[in-house]
Amino acid sequence: MHLFYQPEPVSYLTEDDSRHAIKTLRLGVGDAIAVTDGHGNRYSAVITQADNRRCSYRIIDTQSTPSRPFSVQICVAPTKNSDRIEWFIEKAVEIGIEQITFFFGSHSERRVLKLERLEKIAIAAMKQSLQSHLPQLDEAVSFGEMLKTLSDSSVGDKQRFIAHLPDDEPVDHLAKAATTGGHYVVLVGPEGDFSEQEIKQAKDAGFQMVTLGANRLRTETAALTACQVLNFINV
Amino acid sequence: MHLFYQPEPVSYLTEDDSRHAIKTLRLGVGDAIAVTDGHGNRYSAVITQADNRRCSYRIIDTQSTPSRPFSVQICVAPTKNSDRIEWFIEKAVEIGIEQITFFFGSHSERRVLKLERLEKIAIAAMKQSLQSHLPQLDEAVSFGEMLKTLSDSSVGDKQRFIAHLPDDEPVDHLAKAATTGGHYVVLVGPEGDFSEQEIKQAKDAGFQMVTLGANRLRTETAALTACQVLNFINV
Repeated sequence: MHLFYQPEPVSYLTEDDSRHAIKTLRLGVGDAIAVTDGHGNRYSAVITQADNRRCSYRIIDTQSTPSRPFSVQICVAPTKNSDRIEWFIEKAVEIGIEQITFFFGSHSERRVLKLERLEKIAIAAMKQSLQSHLPQLDEAVSFGEMLKTLSDSSVGDKQRFIAHLPDDEPVDHLAKAATTGGHYVVLVGPEGDFSEQEIKQAKDAGFQMVTLGANRLRTETAALTACQVLNFINV
Repeated sequence: MHLFYQPEPVSYLTEDDSRHAIKTLRLGVGDAIAVTDGHGNRYSAVITQADNRRCSYRIIDTQSTPSRPFSVQICVAPTKNSDRIEWFIEKAVEIGIEQITFFFGSHSERRVLKLERLEKIAIAAMKQSLQSHLPQLDEAVSFGEMLKTLSDSSVGDKQRFIAHLPDDEPVDHLAKAATTGGHYVVLVGPEGDFSEQEIKQAKDAGFQMVTLGANRLRTETAALTACQVLNFINV
């Protein structure tokens, strides 16, 4: 069964998906498809008009998937090589994540981030892994602005972690520090790591320092590992 | 500190590493370097001859890292797109793995695998993550040959799992099925999944079916997730 994405409350596929359905997959009138709105709803439908720019369908059945009883938000600095952050998004969406927030740290080499391409990757990964919830991707902001948003009461009470290994004190592994069934936010630094000031700001904002293991991990590996840990402690 | 790889019991860097040290990093006589043999030994050394084809060094100190008290072997079918399997190797080595075995399943689209490039990626990831153990990469063989090797007594007593979701019966998550401190081998199928016969062969060989989560994962994502799970239950 082919899964398509249509966030709007309409009964036709997006232009991209219409082309894919009709031109690539050669689907026709009467063929069964599945459509998700990315908000937990999945529709079983049949194609009523095989238009390769606006493929119409009729919904036969709706299946709603509730949000997970826990949620994972990873805040990561875009990598210098954009493939690496794109790879992280694909994998994090496949295994399960609610929100990805980008920030520019004072040691970040990359200063620009195009969200459009990243959203396409997230949508493709959601379809590929047959999920009905599209994670939220946030525009990149400065580390300070991000902390301000995360401290906002509207964010609610989340378990806050920063993946950083201090030279002096030993810290817990995220798998031990996080408790199950919670809402988590983890900060992962750029290739150049966090600045001392950023670490102080995070600690002042209630973020607990955690390790992700003994090995030195690349930014995108650390970000995915944090996401994996938080999924596993909730298995 | 720059970490280089020299598996031979000699006191000079490989040609690639010599070029990297002298031409790229512009290191010279007297500069301190670190060298690992990939077998758990890490040497602190100083450059004695800045030759860009054969950079000699004198070992000052040796640090030995024991093998981990558990071991992870992932047996995976090469992906159609070679970037994906290369990505898996880089990430698995970064987070920690002992052995990667490749096999061609009856549903595998790819039938050729060049190990040389994959070994370079594993070495780079070992250096990047500052480890002293280079995982073993095995030449791709047929699924049947692989099972025969894994059933060989010399392999020892490993916890055996096959990542496959049967339609009929519910199965445990790998995180629940595996016990800590063990030696593990996990089979991960190709894009086309395992054939019914391969699953039967694996079950007959004592492999337990496990799930890696609710979402449908790509081959390389499933392989890395299995590796992550086995690392985390041993945190």
